[in-house]
Amino acid sequence: MTAPEVCFEDLPAGRRIALGSVVVDRDEMLAFNRRFDPQPFHVDEEAARESLFGGLCASGWFTASLWMRCYVDGLLTRAASLGSPGGDEISWPAPVFPGDRLDAAMEVLAARVSASRPHLGLVTLLGTLTRDDGTPVYRGRFTGMFGRRDGAPAAAPGDPASP
Amino acid sequence: MTAPEVCFEDLPAGRRIALGSVVVDRDEMLAFNRRFDPQPFHVDEEAARESLFGGLCASGWFTASLWMRCYVDGLLTRAASLGSPGGDEISWPAPVFPGDRLDAAMEVLAARVSASRPHLGLVTLLGTLTRDDGTPVYRGRFTGMFGRRDGAPAAAPGDPASP
Repeated sequence: MTAPEVCFEDLPAGRRIALGSVVVDRDEMLAFNRRFDPQPFHVDEEAARESLFGGLCASGWFTASLWMRCYVDGLLTRAASLGSPGGDEISWPAPVFPGDRLDAAMEVLAARVSASRPHLGLVTLLGTLTRDDGTPVYRGRFTGMFGRRDGAPAAAPGDPASP
Repeated sequence: MTAPEVCFEDLPAGRRIALGSVVVDRDEMLAFNRRFDPQPFHVDEEAARESLFGGLCASGWFTASLWMRCYVDGLLTRAASLGSPGGDEISWPAPVFPGDRLDAAMEVLAARVSASRPHLGLVTLLGTLTRDDGTPVYRGRFTGMFGRRDGAPAAAPGDPASP
């Protein structure tokens, strides 16, 4: 196994990375909505038209999941990612509709070595999705855990979420 | 259409609601992970065993989506839900594995009428999933928008996320 291309040291505060784009597939969106978020404005065409959204729109969790896939493809597949304990912002400033083309991006807001586990770097990220007309539709701010380039040993099992 | 059973007025601060439970299905988890979060510890058995998680575990977005479905089934299907603009906490304090039985719950942390749109009630909710051995595995704190019982007119379209 080759060493990851992107380690903690490669993600300093201020770094911005484009993560590609995705077009919202109606059938996949509906299948997701029906399974995980079957509210009328997510699954019923007529109810959605009469809702404040004006049409069938994506569950916020589908939108977040689309961003996640862009983040994996655009960064994590070549990074020493060790997961995430969570974040302190998730927002959906505008609804997402089938056919929308969304540009994914991320920005590093802060980066520090874990005090309790110095082999780990903690990176505060802002992930975004923006519709191609410029409308922001998703923001997620969270902590990503990344291995350091010096090859310090991996974290002990059983405590993945207390950096 | 009958009036919703649960309106803003029924969700005062301090109200706690059990939202049922769910067992994590391995095949569904893997399909979700492969589509939205194909990191090695989410899709590759051997890599997962060697990771800090110790085994194949759920994408955090799958976990969040499982909670969402419990929230819809346990509350929103009988509520005047008008969506959510987002939240200020999402966390995964421990990994979720196939076969885990998770209890879903929610608690109302705060509730107020929207200043700019008085037909809307804004409810700050804490959603949780807890494994049946007592381990917390998910927390999400966000704002839910709910209609008021007095039947004020629905929100104007086009501005769903600026309460």
